[in-house]
Amino acid sequence: MFTLPQEESRAPATGLGSASTRDSNYGDGLERECSRKPDQKLPDPCDPTAMFSSNSSYLSSRGGIIKWFWDSAEEGYRTYHMDEYDEDKNPSGIINLGTSENKLCFDLLSRRLSQSDMLRVEPSLLQYPDWRGHLFLREEVARFLSFYCKSPVPLKPENVVVLNGCASLFSALATVLCEVGEAFLIPAPYYGAITQHVCLYGNVRLVCVHLDSEVTGLDTRPFQLTVEKLEMALQRAHSEGVKVKGLILINPHNPLGDIYSPGELRDYLEFAKRHELHVMVDEVYMLSVFEKSAAYCSVLSLEGLPDPQRTHVMWATSKDFGMSGLRFGTLYTENRDVATAVASLCRYHGLSGLVQYQMAQLLQDRDWINQVYLPENHARLKAAHTYVTGELRALGIPFLSGGAGFFIWVDLRKYLPEATFKEEMLLWRCFLDNKVLLSCGKTFECKEPGWFRLVFSDKAHRLCLGMQRVRQVLEGKSQAAEAPSSCQSQEPRSQHR
Amino acid sequence: MFTLPQEESRAPATGLGSASTRDSNYGDGLERECSRKPDQKLPDPCDPTAMFSSNSSYLSSRGGIIKWFWDSAEEGYRTYHMDEYDEDKNPSGIINLGTSENKLCFDLLSRRLSQSDMLRVEPSLLQYPDWRGHLFLREEVARFLSFYCKSPVPLKPENVVVLNGCASLFSALATVLCEVGEAFLIPAPYYGAITQHVCLYGNVRLVCVHLDSEVTGLDTRPFQLTVEKLEMALQRAHSEGVKVKGLILINPHNPLGDIYSPGELRDYLEFAKRHELHVMVDEVYMLSVFEKSAAYCSVLSLEGLPDPQRTHVMWATSKDFGMSGLRFGTLYTENRDVATAVASLCRYHGLSGLVQYQMAQLLQDRDWINQVYLPENHARLKAAHTYVTGELRALGIPFLSGGAGFFIWVDLRKYLPEATFKEEMLLWRCFLDNKVLLSCGKTFECKEPGWFRLVFSDKAHRLCLGMQRVRQVLEGKSQAAEAPSSCQSQEPRSQHR
Repeated sequence: MFTLPQEESRAPATGLGSASTRDSNYGDGLERECSRKPDQKLPDPCDPTAMFSSNSSYLSSRGGIIKWFWDSAEEGYRTYHMDEYDEDKNPSGIINLGTSENKLCFDLLSRRLSQSDMLRVEPSLLQYPDWRGHLFLREEVARFLSFYCKSPVPLKPENVVVLNGCASLFSALATVLCEVGEAFLIPAPYYGAITQHVCLYGNVRLVCVHLDSEVTGLDTRPFQLTVEKLEMALQRAHSEGVKVKGLILINPHNPLGDIYSPGELRDYLEFAKRHELHVMVDEVYMLSVFEKSAAYCSVLSLEGLPDPQRTHVMWATSKDFGMSGLRFGTLYTENRDVATAVASLCRYHGLSGLVQYQMAQLLQDRDWINQVYLPENHARLKAAHTYVTGELRALGIPFLSGGAGFFIWVDLRKYLPEATFKEEMLLWRCFLDNKVLLSCGKTFECKEPGWFRLVFSDKAHRLCLGMQRVRQVLEGKSQAAEAPSSCQSQEPRSQHR
Repeated sequence: MFTLPQEESRAPATGLGSASTRDSNYGDGLERECSRKPDQKLPDPCDPTAMFSSNSSYLSSRGGIIKWFWDSAEEGYRTYHMDEYDEDKNPSGIINLGTSENKLCFDLLSRRLSQSDMLRVEPSLLQYPDWRGHLFLREEVARFLSFYCKSPVPLKPENVVVLNGCASLFSALATVLCEVGEAFLIPAPYYGAITQHVCLYGNVRLVCVHLDSEVTGLDTRPFQLTVEKLEMALQRAHSEGVKVKGLILINPHNPLGDIYSPGELRDYLEFAKRHELHVMVDEVYMLSVFEKSAAYCSVLSLEGLPDPQRTHVMWATSKDFGMSGLRFGTLYTENRDVATAVASLCRYHGLSGLVQYQMAQLLQDRDWINQVYLPENHARLKAAHTYVTGELRALGIPFLSGGAGFFIWVDLRKYLPEATFKEEMLLWRCFLDNKVLLSCGKTFECKEPGWFRLVFSDKAHRLCLGMQRVRQVLEGKSQAAEAPSSCQSQEPRSQHR
């Protein structure tokens, strides 16, 4: 780990030796994506001086970098945790619109998980498990995915591996598919925590396929991924000596909220097949499509995957069931070698037998899911989304949102005096100073300064107060600088989706 | 990972490039220590031909090795799983005396874990946790360890990191303390799964401090660890160019059942301090000391640790609470850098908030632990131990057992026609063919062929049947070869402990 040859570490591709901002995972109840102080530099493992400040005489050099990921969360979430909003105890505390969690359905979940069928303690649940996950759970996962992914044929339990969340899955897959220093393509902006998932243990890097907001033709959209862009990024990586082993697709997309059409999905998979690339498909928001008009298509619904042996699908309960603290994730792959190799690492990513039992109970309760949970969850997501997008429209702020996920990708470029990440960071800090935490585009590797991700899946009173504070900051900015920013000409069309 | 330079991989120190047998983690409810077909070779990462058979065109070279660990469990536990003993359904199936699990107290545990205070579902438990573990749990762990480890001062929650088992802890500590290819000293025989824990993700190797059964003086015992042996192993590693970063101590010891005295512990810790070595102390059997006369001393009970910044103590519920399937482990370290770096990796080793709540409830129930669980658990362990040692004595078989743990270290050298690991493996297979699974010394890196670990913490009917089958095999062997084996002169003295 962290031993890339120097020529690689200088390459512009995203990797430990090159990228400048990363996610971290400082604790106390938060998702750490986008939590780093946005102007902080990743220490360069090839420069002992740069390492000095972050390293410890007790840790290895890789240990120093791993610790750095934790420490560097200082300004964002650490500030939040020192001054967390509480309606009664700390009403002037910070509102968190930065963490992608669904806080709208705890009542439904608590009620379901508290039912008596959830607490079963059998000897087999207390003994060493099958590291792939108990068979009864893998059978439920296969049935669940067959149904909700609309698989043309029943999915098989032997293709399922269960572990404690998709973070672990990214880590394990990267390790078993890549050598040290090899890379995955990833369209950017992207859910930034993936950077550390593939690099902390596996020392695998990401090569960004940079998308931009400009719309270049009919039937296209801002930040659209095309096969041409994939080809170019792959060629560039090759020309820089970076070996690319796979492609990461996030669908529905985080942070864009985009949903890929079946045709697009097939195009990306065909591209991967042509180049013998593995595809890791992250579908953790697949049941969080709240807009009825949005047609979601899982990779597992496609008739005849182009390269089934190199297509690996991940899902979890963290987003779709609003249970990020439950640590349940699953891999579906037809590749026996990959499933076995990931299972072999599962000793380090195992989850309690008692939780495995609970998850099997939950996933098999189709009545509750279809008649109670999903309709209510979607209605609440839609209501919160309607409220926030109304506020944004009233402020004249362009945004992207495809009717899926918990967030809106907001274009605040006109509020930057200059189109720089320094200005983006100043605006981010301005929000924080005004007691609202957002995530800025830099932490998603967005190449255009000025985009922010705003999470709306929170209770009305927190959402209202958060939006009030956002409005205050932006109105203050508007008054301070009336002149339009130089980058406004790049503003995407048809952003209100 | 798996990229040791060739000169390192040839070194006799235990590591990926040199050792010949390892544990694996094939699933279906079993601890995989000692599960590999004992004569299987670890593929040599520096030899592409050797790799060919175990590798896959879809996996990286390290992925191939990781998969190999799973596949190579074929003959032992896989055979067992195809033909598992069941009193009613498969009475002629295989009895497992190889997996170190305590199956004696499921009734007590099931009753306690099924109580209504165990099922609490709060929003905070469903949200992203503090990756170090929820504070309420770390507080309970600190109180629990302060009491049961007899700490001279109260232990602090901020020095606690909670994760899903000690396997993960070995993996995380190895990664943050060592560079790729660096090593830990470990007295051998040792719980063999540690090999993969430190190498699969971290590519850290083990350097064995080989102990032998011969007793060389008064007040000494077979397989005794001395500072002299530690010094010699360290020097040898240095002379072979292997950088040693730490020492692993298992206390009570697996598989020896040994308990280190306070004086011994201090000697080993002073040795480590002299050489600036980290010490990972594995105390997962600390409450499984069932012999009243055996005085156990945790490292955390010592007044003034020699090098507190390099002393890292691990404990889990897997053994002492017979819940290997619950996946709960904990680190205690005063070193803030180490705690933070491990916490940063905890995103990949997190456990469910619901389980964290359950564990806090369990650990704080001192009445149940002291008045119900521990007395009953110790009584049952002692009864099972008394039965098995009686059987061994009747057979005239020497053994070691210190009144702690779930196993007896059995000297079957006189049953080997020749003192070779090939013969040890043949005897191991003989047991398996006779439907009883044991663990042989080779999988613990024991240097003397003919030692076996026999787990006794199982219900009477399985234990009786297992011992009957062991007796059948050994009596058959005695008849086949009446002549004493050449290695009998090395038989240790005072083995009946």
